[in-house]
Amino acid sequence: MRILVVNPNSTRHMTETIGAAARRVASPGTEIIAVNPADGPPAIQGFYDEAMCVPGLLDIIRRTAGFDGVVIACFDDTGLDAARCLTDRPVIGIGEAAYHMASMLSNKFSVVTTLARSVPALEHNLIRYGLAARCARVRASDVPVLELERPGSQARARIGNEVARAITEDKAEAIVLGCAGMADFAASLSAEHGLPVIDGVVSAIAMCEAMIRLDLRTSRLGGYTPPDAAAPGVARIATT
Amino acid sequence: MRILVVNPNSTRHMTETIGAAARRVASPGTEIIAVNPADGPPAIQGFYDEAMCVPGLLDIIRRTAGFDGVVIACFDDTGLDAARCLTDRPVIGIGEAAYHMASMLSNKFSVVTTLARSVPALEHNLIRYGLAARCARVRASDVPVLELERPGSQARARIGNEVARAITEDKAEAIVLGCAGMADFAASLSAEHGLPVIDGVVSAIAMCEAMIRLDLRTSRLGGYTPPDAAAPGVARIATT
Amino acid sequence: MRILVVNPNSTRHMTETIGAAARRVASPGTEIIAVNPADGPPAIQGFYDEAMCVPGLLDIIRRTAGFDGVVIACFDDTGLDAARCLTDRPVIGIGEAAYHMASMLSNKFSVVTTLARSVPALEHNLIRYGLAARCARVRASDVPVLELERPGSQARARIGNEVARAITEDKAEAIVLGCAGMADFAASLSAEHGLPVIDGVVSAIAMCEAMIRLDLRTSRLGGYTPPDAAAPGVARIATT
Amino acid sequence: MRILVVNPNSTRHMTETIGAAARRVASPGTEIIAVNPADGPPAIQGFYDEAMCVPGLLDIIRRTAGFDGVVIACFDDTGLDAARCLTDRPVIGIGEAAYHMASMLSNKFSVVTTLARSVPALEHNLIRYGLAARCARVRASDVPVLELERPGSQARARIGNEVARAITEDKAEAIVLGCAGMADFAASLSAEHGLPVIDGVVSAIAMCEAMIRLDLRTSRLGGYTPPDAAAPGVARIATT
Amino acid sequence: MRILVVNPNSTRHMTETIGAAARRVASPGTEIIAVNPADGPPAIQGFYDEAMCVPGLLDIIRRTAGFDGVVIACFDDTGLDAARCLTDRPVIGIGEAAYHMASMLSNKFSVVTTLARSVPALEHNLIRYGLAARCARVRASDVPVLELERPGSQARARIGNEVARAITEDKAEAIVLGCAGMADFAASLSAEHGLPVIDGVVSAIAMCEAMIRLDLRTSRLGGYTPPDAAAPGVARIATT
Amino acid sequence: MRILVVNPNSTRHMTETIGAAARRVASPGTEIIAVNPADGPPAIQGFYDEAMCVPGLLDIIRRTAGFDGVVIACFDDTGLDAARCLTDRPVIGIGEAAYHMASMLSNKFSVVTTLARSVPALEHNLIRYGLAARCARVRASDVPVLELERPGSQARARIGNEVARAITEDKAEAIVLGCAGMADFAASLSAEHGLPVIDGVVSAIAMCEAMIRLDLRTSRLGGYTPPDAAAPGVARIATT
Repeated sequence: MRILVVNPNSTRHMTETIGAAARRVASPGTEIIAVNPADGPPAIQGFYDEAMCVPGLLDIIRRTAGFDGVVIACFDDTGLDAARCLTDRPVIGIGEAAYHMASMLSNKFSVVTTLARSVPALEHNLIRYGLAARCARVRASDVPVLELERPGSQARARIGNEVARAITEDKAEAIVLGCAGMADFAASLSAEHGLPVIDGVVSAIAMCEAMIRLDLRTSRLGGYTPPDAAAPGVARIATT
Repeated sequence: MRILVVNPNSTRHMTETIGAAARRVASPGTEIIAVNPADGPPAIQGFYDEAMCVPGLLDIIRRTAGFDGVVIACFDDTGLDAARCLTDRPVIGIGEAAYHMASMLSNKFSVVTTLARSVPALEHNLIRYGLAARCARVRASDVPVLELERPGSQARARIGNEVARAITEDKAEAIVLGCAGMADFAASLSAEHGLPVIDGVVSAIAMCEAMIRLDLRTSRLGGYTPPDAAAPGVARIATT
Repeated sequence: MRILVVNPNSTRHMTETIGAAARRVASPGTEIIAVNPADGPPAIQGFYDEAMCVPGLLDIIRRTAGFDGVVIACFDDTGLDAARCLTDRPVIGIGEAAYHMASMLSNKFSVVTTLARSVPALEHNLIRYGLAARCARVRASDVPVLELERPGSQARARIGNEVARAITEDKAEAIVLGCAGMADFAASLSAEHGLPVIDGVVSAIAMCEAMIRLDLRTSRLGGYTPPDAAAPGVARIATT
Repeated sequence: MRILVVNPNSTRHMTETIGAAARRVASPGTEIIAVNPADGPPAIQGFYDEAMCVPGLLDIIRRTAGFDGVVIACFDDTGLDAARCLTDRPVIGIGEAAYHMASMLSNKFSVVTTLARSVPALEHNLIRYGLAARCARVRASDVPVLELERPGSQARARIGNEVARAITEDKAEAIVLGCAGMADFAASLSAEHGLPVIDGVVSAIAMCEAMIRLDLRTSRLGGYTPPDAAAPGVARIATT
Repeated sequence: MRILVVNPNSTRHMTETIGAAARRVASPGTEIIAVNPADGPPAIQGFYDEAMCVPGLLDIIRRTAGFDGVVIACFDDTGLDAARCLTDRPVIGIGEAAYHMASMLSNKFSVVTTLARSVPALEHNLIRYGLAARCARVRASDVPVLELERPGSQARARIGNEVARAITEDKAEAIVLGCAGMADFAASLSAEHGLPVIDGVVSAIAMCEAMIRLDLRTSRLGGYTPPDAAAPGVARIATT
Repeated sequence: MRILVVNPNSTRHMTETIGAAARRVASPGTEIIAVNPADGPPAIQGFYDEAMCVPGLLDIIRRTAGFDGVVIACFDDTGLDAARCLTDRPVIGIGEAAYHMASMLSNKFSVVTTLARSVPALEHNLIRYGLAARCARVRASDVPVLELERPGSQARARIGNEVARAITEDKAEAIVLGCAGMADFAASLSAEHGLPVIDGVVSAIAMCEAMIRLDLRTSRLGGYTPPDAAAPGVARIATT
C-alpha cells in the first residue's frame, strides 16, 4: 500500500525526518511518500501559518495519483476537513491519531506542544473531536518548532519538564507530544517518566494502515461531499 | 471609520450585494470597503472551498491600509482566526455576529443555510464559539449559494419552508440566515413568520462598528499572537 | 434613539456614574435615560440582592414609555429574562454584552469581579449563555461594590493583581471586568497589562445601539411570550 | 420537624392542594406549614411571573421562625438560590427534587409541563443543575396551570398524551410532572403507562425530611453567603 | 420497611460499621439488613476490585426476599446499573446519593476519596450522572480504605488537609467524603471546617427511605429492562 | 504477534465467528487466540449480562500467558477498565475502536445496535469516551443478538432499515454496527447505502495491531494502576 505523508510546512529537512519516522513503523510492503509544498510557512506556529499552508497541501493531494491513504503531518491537523473532500481514502491527522490512541491507553492525557500561540488551535481541535474531556491540559514548552532539531538546544529538557508537571499537576496518565518534530523524544521520555508518551506521526501511519487494511473509506455524504467540478483546482484531481 | 468587508469568494456580483447591504446599515461617516479576491472559489460550499479562499482573503487584509475593523462576509467565518493574527483591529465573522445577536434576542435559535454539505462546518463553529447549546438545529434548505439571487428560483420559498419547520419542530424562537446571500430575505421572513430573522452581514457591520467605537481591539496574546516576520507574506502587512 | 439604562440597585451615585459612562460612548443622537429603583439593595452582591431588586427593575421598564432598547446595568444580568417578556425591544445585560464581545476578541477570557459570593451567579450565567467554555475563570478581587469608588481604596490595585494572575495562570487573552462600578479602570488596565479589558456598561450600550439600528427585536415566541394581562403590574405596561 | 412549604403564587386553593399532598407523604411528627404570598402572580407561567413572586416568597421565609427546612413549591424552582442565602436549613425546589429522584430511577427522563412559555426556564434549570444530559426532552402539554384543577378540563388527557409520546419518541424511562398542580395525576399515569411518574411536591418533602434527619445544612460559603445586614428586609430575618 | 444494604467488599468489619451508621439514621420501623459477599476483594480500590465484586453483590440481591429498597455501600456505585435490572425497588448507590444531596446544598462541591487510583472511576460516574459540572474536583487523600479504621493512622488528618485545600483552591462550598469508611469523620470535619461534609452511607439510607415512602420504583423500560430468564442466576431471583 | 480476543459471552459459535472475522483482517504473522468463558450469559444484552460476564473475562486474561494485546469482543466494551488494570499491553474494546475510527471518517455517525435495552449502556460509553457529540444517535433494530446468525431471520433487513433512517433523519455520514454479531453485514450495507459501515471486531483487531507495532502500552498510572497482590485472583496473573 502507498501512504502519502504531507508535511504542510516547507522545511524539507523536517519532511525527511518525518518520512524516516514513518518508514520505521510502516509495515513491510507499505510505501511512504513524504512530501511538502515548495512554498508556504517554514514552520506552523499558530492559526496564520496553518491557513497559509493549506492550499499547497491540497494541491499535493490533488496532483498525487495512486495513494491508498493520506497522513497530514502537522499536529494542528491543518486542512484535514478540506483534504477529506478530495478523496474517499482515509485522511488522518497526526494530532487526532495521537489523541484517539491516548484515549484508549489512559483515562486522561496531557499534550506538550511548542509555543503558547499554538495552544488554542489544539484546544479547538480537541473540542471538535469530542476529546477535550479526555485531555487534562495542553501545555506549551516554549520551544519553537525549528529549535527541536537544533543540536545543543534545551528542547528535550524543557519538554521533559512539562511531562513531569503533567503527571504531578494534571494527573495525566499518558502524554501526547504536540509537534511532528518531537517524534524522536517519545521513547526516552516514556522510559524516563514511566508512562505512555505518544507521537502523532507514527500513530497516524499505523492508524492509516489499519484503515486501509480494513478498506475503510472517508464518507462522501454531508460535510465531506466532493467539491463541485468548478471549484479551483478540482479539475486537476488525480485518479486515486 | 473605515470597515474592510471581505467577501472571500470571487463572485464580484455577490460582493456588490454585500457591500450595498453593509452600506444601508452603516452609520453616517462609516466607509465600507467591499472587496473579494481575484481568484478562488466562486462560492463557498463546504470545507474545501473554505480552505481555498483563505490565502486570498488574508492577502487582502495584509495589503489594505488604514481600516479600523474587518468583516469576513462568508457565513462559515472562513479564515477568522488567521485574520485575527494579522491585525489588532476587530475582525468579525458574519456567522459569529449573527449567532451572538440571536443569543441575546431568544432562548434558542435555528440556522437555515444553503446545502447539506455546509452544515458540519457551521456546527463546528457553533461548538467552538460555545453557542451550540443555544442553537436548536442547523437546517439545509438545499438552495445552492449562487441560486439565491437568480430571478425565478425557488430560493425564498424553500428557505421560508425551513423557517416554518424550525418554529414547529425545533421550537426555535429566532432564525439565523446561514449565508451572506440571504440578507435580502430577512425582513420579509421576519414579518411573515413572526420572529426575529437575523442576517449575518448587517449584524457583523453593526458589531464591528460597536467595537471600533469602544476602541476594543483583538488580543495579541496567546492564539492571536502576530505571526513571525519570516512567515509568508507577513513582510507585506500594511500599516493600519 | 432612546436607551433606558436601569441600574437595578438603589445607589443613585452609581446610577450617575453608569449614565455618564453610557453617554460617553453613545452615538450622537442617542438619548440615555439612566434610572434606578427607589428601593431595593444598595449594591447587588449575590443571589439575594439580585432577587430583591428585580420587581423594582421591572416596574421601571413597565412605567417607561418610548424607549428603543433597554440595558440592565448590573453584571449579574439581573432580571434579564423577565424584562424580555415585557417588551419586544432589545434588552441587553451588561454581563452578557461583555462576554459576547470578549468571545470575538480572544480565544479565552477571564472575569475579575468583586466578592467571592458573586462568583457562582456569574458562572451560572456563563453556563446558560453557552459561553462557560470560553471563560477560563471567574476571579474574585475581594473588593466590595461600594468600595470601588471610594478614594484611597485598594480597589484598582487588587483588581490589577487579579488581571496579572489571569494572564499567567489562566492563559486569559482578554479580561472582562465583572461589575458596573469598574468601568473607569478598563482603559488603564488594558494599557498596563497589554490585553483587551472589557467593561460591560459600554459594551451593552454599543450592542443595544447596534440592534436598534438593525431593527432587531426580542422574540415573542416561547420563553419570552408576554405575560398574561392578569399578571401583577402588567396592565400598567407603557406603550413603547 | 417543621417544614415550611411556600407556594410562590398567590392562589390560595393551590396552596391548600399542595399542603394536602405534602401532608399525605410527610412522616408522622412532621408539621407542614403551607403558605403563599398575599400578593403576586396567581400562577407562575414563564420568567416574568417567576421574578415577580420572589420577594413575597423571601419575605415569608424571613418572617417565619422555627422551621427545619423549606420547600419551594413551584416547578421553576423560583427564588431557590436567593432563599438559600437566608437560612442554613435545607431549601429544596420541587423541580430539582423531582429531577434528582428521576436520575436515580431511570437512565433518561422526560418532563411534561404546562405551557410552551415555561419550557426554557426548566431547560435553564436542568443545564444549571447539570442534569440536562439526563433529560430527554421538556414537553409542553399546552394546559395552563389554573386549568389543571378545573373539573371537565382536558388536562389529564393531554398530559397522558405527552407521556405516551415521551416513551415512544424520547425513549424516556421515567416521567417528571412539570407543575405543582399535576401531583394528583402521578399515580394513575404511572399505572397506565407503566413507568415511574414523579411529582415534585412529594419528592421535595421527602428529600427535605431526609436532609433534616441527617442534619445536613445549606452551605454558608461562596454563593450562599448570607446577605449583608444592610440588605432590604434582612434585619427582619426570624431566628430559625 | 426493610432496606438491604450491600457492602460489596468482603470485609465483615466494614459491613458492621456501615450497618451501624445506617441504623443510626434510619427511621423507627426501618429494618437495615447489612450484608457482604463471602468472597471477593477485601476493599474496592479501582476498576478491577469493582468488577470482581459485582457478581457477589448481584447474587445477594437475587437471593434476598422481601426488601423494599437496596443501598449499594461502595462509593464507586459498583454494579448499580446491573442491580437495577433485578428489581423494581429503588436501588441507590452511596456515591450518587451524596452527589445529589451535595448539589442541593451548595453551588459546587469537592470529593475527598482514598487513593489516586480510585479517582477516574468517580470522575466517570460524575460525568454519567451529569453532575461533573457541579463537582470542583475529586481529590485523593492517599489513605487506603482499610487504613481508615486503624487506630493511630493519619487518616483523619490527611482527609482534613484535603478538605482545607478544597475550600481554598477549589472554592468548594461542600465536601463529599468519597469512601463508605469515612462516615465517622463527617460531623467533626463539618464543624471544624465550617461547611457541609456529606457521607454517602447515611445519604443513601435517607434517600432510599424517601423513595420507598413515596412508592417510587426503578423503571422497567429501556436500560433497566429485567434480564431474560435464561441469563445466569436469574431463575433464582427471590420474590420481593 | 499474538492477540487475545475474548468474547465475554459463553456462546462458542459466536466466538468462532468472531475469531474467523479477526483472522481475515489480521496481518500475516498475527496469531488470533479467540476464547470465551465457560460460564456466563449466552448473550450480552444490557447491564446485567454485562456485569455477569466480567469475572470470567478477567480470569481468561489473567490465565493467558504471552499475548501482545487484548481485544474485548462485546460492543458494550464490557470490563474494559478492569482488564486494563491487569496488563500493560493494549486492551481494546470493539465498541471504542469502531467509534474512534468512525470519528476519523465522518463528521457524525449513528450506531445501529440490537435491543433497546442495550442503548443506554452504549450511550454511557460514548459519554465517557468523549465521543457522544460525534454520535448522532444510537438506534435499536430490535433484533436480539442470537437472532443475528439465524438463517431466515429478518435481521439484515431490519438493520438496513435503521441505516436508511440514520442517513435521512440523523444526517449520519457513517454507521457503526453495534454488535459483534453484525460483522458480516458491514460490506454489503456499505455498498447498498453508500457510506462507511464500520464493524467493531475488525476495527479493534487493526487498532490493537497498530498499537502493538508502535509498542504503545496501557498506562500504569492513576486509574489503571495494577490491583494489589491481595485482590482476588491477582496472584494468578500469567506473565505476559
